[in-house]
Amino acid sequence: MFGQLFRVSTFGESHGGAVGVVVDGCPPMLAISEKEVQKELNRRKPGQSRITTARNEADQVQILSGVFQGKTLGTPILMLVGNTDARSQDYKQMQDLFRPSHADFTYQMKYGIRNWQGGGRSSARETIGRVAAGAIAKKLLKERYKTEILAYVKQVHDLYAEVDSNKVQLKDIEKNIVRCPDAKVAKEMIALIDQVRKQGDSLGGVVEAVARNVPIGWGEPVFDKLEADLAKAMMSLPASKGFEIGSGFSSIMMTGSEHNDPFTLKGNKVKTKSNFSGGVQGGISNGENIVIRTAFKPTATIMKSQETVSVKGKKAILKAKGRHDPCVLPRAVPMVESMIALVLADHALRHEAQCR
Amino acid sequence: MFGQLFRVSTFGESHGGAVGVVVDGCPPMLAISEKEVQKELNRRKPGQSRITTARNEADQVQILSGVFQGKTLGTPILMLVGNTDARSQDYKQMQDLFRPSHADFTYQMKYGIRNWQGGGRSSARETIGRVAAGAIAKKLLKERYKTEILAYVKQVHDLYAEVDSNKVQLKDIEKNIVRCPDAKVAKEMIALIDQVRKQGDSLGGVVEAVARNVPIGWGEPVFDKLEADLAKAMMSLPASKGFEIGSGFSSIMMTGSEHNDPFTLKGNKVKTKSNFSGGVQGGISNGENIVIRTAFKPTATIMKSQETVSVKGKKAILKAKGRHDPCVLPRAVPMVESMIALVLADHALRHEAQCR
Amino acid sequence: MFGQLFRVSTFGESHGGAVGVVVDGCPPMLAISEKEVQKELNRRKPGQSRITTARNEADQVQILSGVFQGKTLGTPILMLVGNTDARSQDYKQMQDLFRPSHADFTYQMKYGIRNWQGGGRSSARETIGRVAAGAIAKKLLKERYKTEILAYVKQVHDLYAEVDSNKVQLKDIEKNIVRCPDAKVAKEMIALIDQVRKQGDSLGGVVEAVARNVPIGWGEPVFDKLEADLAKAMMSLPASKGFEIGSGFSSIMMTGSEHNDPFTLKGNKVKTKSNFSGGVQGGISNGENIVIRTAFKPTATIMKSQETVSVKGKKAILKAKGRHDPCVLPRAVPMVESMIALVLADHALRHEAQCR
Amino acid sequence: MFGQLFRVSTFGESHGGAVGVVVDGCPPMLAISEKEVQKELNRRKPGQSRITTARNEADQVQILSGVFQGKTLGTPILMLVGNTDARSQDYKQMQDLFRPSHADFTYQMKYGIRNWQGGGRSSARETIGRVAAGAIAKKLLKERYKTEILAYVKQVHDLYAEVDSNKVQLKDIEKNIVRCPDAKVAKEMIALIDQVRKQGDSLGGVVEAVARNVPIGWGEPVFDKLEADLAKAMMSLPASKGFEIGSGFSSIMMTGSEHNDPFTLKGNKVKTKSNFSGGVQGGISNGENIVIRTAFKPTATIMKSQETVSVKGKKAILKAKGRHDPCVLPRAVPMVESMIALVLADHALRHEAQCR
Repeated sequence: MFGQLFRVSTFGESHGGAVGVVVDGCPPMLAISEKEVQKELNRRKPGQSRITTARNEADQVQILSGVFQGKTLGTPILMLVGNTDARSQDYKQMQDLFRPSHADFTYQMKYGIRNWQGGGRSSARETIGRVAAGAIAKKLLKERYKTEILAYVKQVHDLYAEVDSNKVQLKDIEKNIVRCPDAKVAKEMIALIDQVRKQGDSLGGVVEAVARNVPIGWGEPVFDKLEADLAKAMMSLPASKGFEIGSGFSSIMMTGSEHNDPFTLKGNKVKTKSNFSGGVQGGISNGENIVIRTAFKPTATIMKSQETVSVKGKKAILKAKGRHDPCVLPRAVPMVESMIALVLADHALRHEAQCR
Repeated sequence: MFGQLFRVSTFGESHGGAVGVVVDGCPPMLAISEKEVQKELNRRKPGQSRITTARNEADQVQILSGVFQGKTLGTPILMLVGNTDARSQDYKQMQDLFRPSHADFTYQMKYGIRNWQGGGRSSARETIGRVAAGAIAKKLLKERYKTEILAYVKQVHDLYAEVDSNKVQLKDIEKNIVRCPDAKVAKEMIALIDQVRKQGDSLGGVVEAVARNVPIGWGEPVFDKLEADLAKAMMSLPASKGFEIGSGFSSIMMTGSEHNDPFTLKGNKVKTKSNFSGGVQGGISNGENIVIRTAFKPTATIMKSQETVSVKGKKAILKAKGRHDPCVLPRAVPMVESMIALVLADHALRHEAQCR
Repeated sequence: MFGQLFRVSTFGESHGGAVGVVVDGCPPMLAISEKEVQKELNRRKPGQSRITTARNEADQVQILSGVFQGKTLGTPILMLVGNTDARSQDYKQMQDLFRPSHADFTYQMKYGIRNWQGGGRSSARETIGRVAAGAIAKKLLKERYKTEILAYVKQVHDLYAEVDSNKVQLKDIEKNIVRCPDAKVAKEMIALIDQVRKQGDSLGGVVEAVARNVPIGWGEPVFDKLEADLAKAMMSLPASKGFEIGSGFSSIMMTGSEHNDPFTLKGNKVKTKSNFSGGVQGGISNGENIVIRTAFKPTATIMKSQETVSVKGKKAILKAKGRHDPCVLPRAVPMVESMIALVLADHALRHEAQCR
Repeated sequence: MFGQLFRVSTFGESHGGAVGVVVDGCPPMLAISEKEVQKELNRRKPGQSRITTARNEADQVQILSGVFQGKTLGTPILMLVGNTDARSQDYKQMQDLFRPSHADFTYQMKYGIRNWQGGGRSSARETIGRVAAGAIAKKLLKERYKTEILAYVKQVHDLYAEVDSNKVQLKDIEKNIVRCPDAKVAKEMIALIDQVRKQGDSLGGVVEAVARNVPIGWGEPVFDKLEADLAKAMMSLPASKGFEIGSGFSSIMMTGSEHNDPFTLKGNKVKTKSNFSGGVQGGISNGENIVIRTAFKPTATIMKSQETVSVKGKKAILKAKGRHDPCVLPRAVPMVESMIALVLADHALRHEAQCR
């Protein structure tokens, strides 16, 4: 489960009946439709372009409870997506061999059992529930606070895009299949991924995200700092290896006098001149844009033979088979946005409960 | 509160009665003494060297419940440290002005009130409770699983230490005041901090940490992935701006075939040849060393005049006054170790509950 | 959500897509089938006899995640039951009028919206999820600890059954439609309910339950005492008005020297001579049978005209219409068993986490 | 821990350093003083009259964090009471023998260790933390919503008081040492307790409580029904054996048409003509007075010899020794009020978070 007040539980394995999510604690009277949720799911869906996994799923969502006549009831919202592309023969090899840098080995050791078809619970299909829940959280944030959340691909391997996080718009992001608003670099990224894809290999990179119009005061002083919950959210996504907020790791190269964000006035509003803090100070939003970055490793599902070990404890070679995912980044974009939305919606409600 | 089963609640402001922690859910029959906890607190304590804050506190801990005849009872453990160095006149300026990149402004806006003496709840004194709780978690992990957690300063500004995380020992870390096991670079670090300190300025850097002898199977598949909880733990520490596990941000420069950790056998044990995963796969520990890094910004408390705004909404200059903290890193080391211990102890108990 | 480690979230309104449950935290490798769950759901199902509600639902369960090749995976288990008997025209009156002693008024005031079809979220259909989850909890308890949970109707209105909670068996309970193991009194109960049913009225009563073979040590000392969680579980069931454990309210008529349960030895086992404590002392199970009783009010759904108020704030008469429920007790029996199972399964895991 | 948003953690054993509580999630800017808390603690304190335990403790509270210049900061509030009456020699016998119907046996079996001095964690001293936290919750409820909570002794053994829960005032309750507002029956109660006290025995009874001016809409539809959380709160108190709300167990003797509370209008407000529901419908407050009753068994601490078993597994006789508690009811009154306040404060915040 994720969230204290806006609570989200996903369920489902890659193969088997269905995947989905229960959203509990969403305020009543929020207008929401399957269509709005579907729109976000389509951004996450496999097979949407040649540079992501070729797995083919309709990912059609059904809202089965918690919404009545187009509005939330305040009761748990169940959203369900059936699994249809069950080519489990492709996964036969996975029954016997542990795929390197996947969850096969750790699941087997932890539980003594795993659904070896397509990664089971560790499959990226689990994120369908997150994106569906995120669609509702986004709507809530937008309706109540005009808060807007956007993510985009900032870096693929050594290709680094120039993006102004204060100004970027959704349409800039959706303009190309790699979801990078820097059109020129986007082309290079696509070319590079294509090249690596043909070699059966994969690439990683950085997704940057911005949350704008976040009211002052969200977040908690100690363990549930806003950046702490954002970090957890990002590092709970498959394939993420690093997180930073504001200046992040580059803060190291500055001194305190360079890094501190001076306060100033714009009209009668207190603003900071710079935003190295990334919109959060002392764990609490300060009204500036929240800017975070997440590093995603090159996808583990590749089309090359790899050394491994069998379930029975013998050395083995895992052969290239099935479909691979040359770059998770374009599909990670809606996942990142969704997780940020879940964190912010939860802290919005927590803030109102304690400090209305 | 932090943790689901090994639960920790800290309390206390910088000035005022006391700071401390309640640890709930610690197993019974664990031998623990005030002396053991004190030893860790002394590593965190201000005034321990010229390169950290000069604030002077005894930080003497009392265990007031949950321990009987030297052993834990299984009931909540209260540990308390009184506040003694209450030079609140030093903080008078803080009543009226928001210190840049501190929590003054966000606390005031969130709560409509703040204890302006020495940072109140946002003071690093809050971490006393974490380190005290961490001392117990460390003991539990060591006794039950031989798990060992070590952190050390890996980088200060542009000075980067060479440390073998597989072999480093506590004595190497405690050998110098900057807590960097690379003796040569440590000297340079100290010199650099000294120089910046004299300018009234501050520096940031990276704390790296390793957890060794972590059993296979700790962590959860989805939201409570081990790296997600570690990220939250690190990003909940004051001044942290970034987190990474294993290959972290550098994974971006590799391809999937380079980055995947091949499985192999050592005796009848399944091991990985490389450890880019950082000891966690699919959110669950795989038996390799867990290696994480946390970026800490240059401390916000500097001795230079800064532009700011007053509580009443006027532009103002914050003058250098009181004591500053040229580099938080040496004191962050026990904080990092403690937070890792809290995460691991909690997941150890969760694992035993579900998968014994 | 219910439970800390064995966690259960139900979802669904009476009318609309589906009702069901997500069970999270169930240990892996537990054998469970849809058939086993269905068996319990059939005991809860409406229309099973003339003395309960006539609503007709197949209540066919599907397990859509968390189970693989007949065994739990350790991942969230989704169980779903579709709503089929959607005679929403019967409920048209409910759109405008608040039914006395139902949740119509409070839901409308709390949320500003309600699914007025058949009670929506407040419908007893919600308990389908509980009974499905309870079936899994029961299985876990039986397999691991041989713990057995039985509930039965102890009292209907003024008819009081004689039942030995130490010896009663499931087959005694299932022998008649009122689920009262005292065959003679059961007949009288059925006759009385029949009589009141024909008048369009309803009756309440007491469900008693026993848990046998509960290991010593389950439960927590303070807020999460075993009896506290059992009380919460019972009082969360629709129509419950009172709860007691062991001697319960009758303890009042005894003195301390009469009420204390003397310890004695049976072989080398410590046992109590009497069991006024009801199997729990200081919040923790003591190895004796746990015995609790829950009072259920006469069902609010009756076939008589009643004074009420409309949504628009006018006085009105609610006319008899649709189907009524003369006595909820026989269907409450599996609900009570399920909720006890959820409490015990959760405390079993908590105990193992802290005190293995 | 108790509560989801207004969170309370008590700590402390009967003997040893201290007992107390951390209150987390209390809104900021609430005026609160040690004096106000102390007033409630004095009502709970032992030795306040001859009919309760003679143990002598000052129970002086200190607020050590979370309050600044007389107002809550929104940060965790630590309240501490030292243990002073450490006559541990009185408890020497308890080291070896399990006291019947106390927690000695279950604690020993669960944890393998217990603080045998005066009951340790199971001592009623633990409730100091609850009453201190309750004092803050009461203040919050009164300031924000004018909600008022009163409890009183309704029954001692077979002596039953007449009290109008709609009208009773605090001064009526505090007028006599048994805290029963029916002055005539109160005298008889005191006389009866006196008589039993001289015999070294004890009595139980019923505490009734009313919450007035509870806004409509507090509580949750399913597991966290208001009556479910109230039941848990009451059954978490030491010595409680039963709970009921509104008509409670007596609802059984009514039919549905008698028991349903008809809606009517008072001005433009929807009210119920009767209040068998006890102020809660469908788990949510309906604006009527909330009325609950809790049964407390005769206190287990008596001055008579009792059969028992030793820690080493031998039959033994526990001799009368030390001080006993002839009737817990007068001291249970502030505990009951406090626990109700904690439940209501928590649900108030939850309601505002979701449905403001």
